Amino acid sequence: MVERAIHDHQMFSPHERILVALSGGKDSLSLAWILRELGYSVSGLHIDLGIPDSSHHARHITEEFCSRHAIPLHVLEMEPMGLGMAQVRRRIRRPICSVCGQTKRYFFNRFALEHGFSALATGHNLDDETSRLLANILRWDTAFLADQGPVLPAQPGFVRKVKPLYRLTEFETANLSFLLGIETASAPCPYSAKASFPIYKNLLAELEEKQPGRKLQFYEGFLKTGRIHFPKDSEATLQPCPECGSPTSAPLCGVCRLRAVMASAEDR
Amino acid sequence: MVERAIHDHQMFSPHERILVALSGGKDSLSLAWILRELGYSVSGLHIDLGIPDSSHHARHITEEFCSRHAIPLHVLEMEPMGLGMAQVRRRIRRPICSVCGQTKRYFFNRFALEHGFSALATGHNLDDETSRLLANILRWDTAFLADQGPVLPAQPGFVRKVKPLYRLTEFETANLSFLLGIETASAPCPYSAKASFPIYKNLLAELEEKQPGRKLQFYEGFLKTGRIHFPKDSEATLQPCPECGSPTSAPLCGVCRLRAVMASAEDR
Repeated sequence: MVERAIHDHQMFSPHERILVALSGGKDSLSLAWILRELGYSVSGLHIDLGIPDSSHHARHITEEFCSRHAIPLHVLEMEPMGLGMAQVRRRIRRPICSVCGQTKRYFFNRFALEHGFSALATGHNLDDETSRLLANILRWDTAFLADQGPVLPAQPGFVRKVKPLYRLTEFETANLSFLLGIETASAPCPYSAKASFPIYKNLLAELEEKQPGRKLQFYEGFLKTGRIHFPKDSEATLQPCPECGSPTSAPLCGVCRLRAVMASAEDR
Repeated sequence: MVERAIHDHQMFSPHERILVALSGGKDSLSLAWILRELGYSVSGLHIDLGIPDSSHHARHITEEFCSRHAIPLHVLEMEPMGLGMAQVRRRIRRPICSVCGQTKRYFFNRFALEHGFSALATGHNLDDETSRLLANILRWDTAFLADQGPVLPAQPGFVRKVKPLYRLTEFETANLSFLLGIETASAPCPYSAKASFPIYKNLLAELEEKQPGRKLQFYEGFLKTGRIHFPKDSEATLQPCPECGSPTSAPLCGVCRLRAVMASAEDR
């Protein structure tokens, strides 16, 4: 399934260096292991987000797993940069999940570009993808619909992003991670109790039970027939951030704005 | 809610004559009553499909209701034309629901055109519409997506079709029909046990419970933001049926083909 996903969507070749975004969860760790087993050149990047009771555990699992399976691992720590999520949460009024997601995307992308990786691979599975698709459809968020898929091609300032596990259900990745001895009892994030994706995952699970194969059919149908109808947002307005050079539509990119806010908070 | 739907989508004006498709179910009967109460000029058309244990009951309810509320009613009988569904089901291999739906659409449309009605109104409610929308999306049936909505404008050979109840949930139309004293215990069609729409209705009901307002938001969002992206199938290939004149893409229209098959079956 994974090889087929990689080939069908030309995600990457054996000659390319792939960076795997490792959260410490079962999907991303399984992904790193699978890609290595399939003979691809992979390294992992873990971002230590500085979330109490959660980040320490996630980092420990990641380090232990990569060491056991001889997968090269890089770790980026947010706290020394003043961007630990516990610190950020005390200063920022925006929903912390949105800030956290933005920060992770920024550093994963930047690290991949700066260290010459051809692609950034994430562990999103079929349930992640279909629940996000359903959420985007229920809101008719056409810009997100245009961009959703197992491959997001490289663009100036953005590394190629790929999701090799997109055909595997959560049940399948859970089985695999069990066989690999990955501790799945990782602590849930203490900040994200209200996520709505589980609602959509449960709905789709019910549907799958009544119409087996529906989830994959829904997603593949979207890729073949649906997505083409949603126009891509023009990237024309993106410019390099004057602080860090990352593409942004604002005077400063989101993470540099966050850095500025955090620095001014320290001063006070 | 109904007035707003009629006005917002310019379904029809008080000067136009409206034909209401009356199945004998609570929604279509309620619709005829509401439109009459709102001052519109309505007549009903009931098609007696000749389905054992079901059609007789549906016709009786419809006749009794229209007589009680002084709503002019026309009845078309399929059996004398050799198109009763019990007869058809013995001869035709296609799924009977598809033949039945096609036959109803044909005669409702034809009757409206031949008797000078400006629009054909059907009792589809929000649950009907959202479950159909979800079904079309899960299959990414883009031609159906382009055509779905509360108003289908008139085209050569096709009367305007409108759904004034599209903002009302099934719960609301059920309440109304209860107040109107409509017998809701109408016999279910004995041929349509396997319909998949109830699955989607149940899923959307669960979602609505967790995210109140979601169904209407999903449907209105589709009308405002989603539908425009799905291209309409070109009507260029439609020609008048040489037997009856109705638009068709085939040498004979579907109902004339059915008539021919049924006639040849009689000969044998």
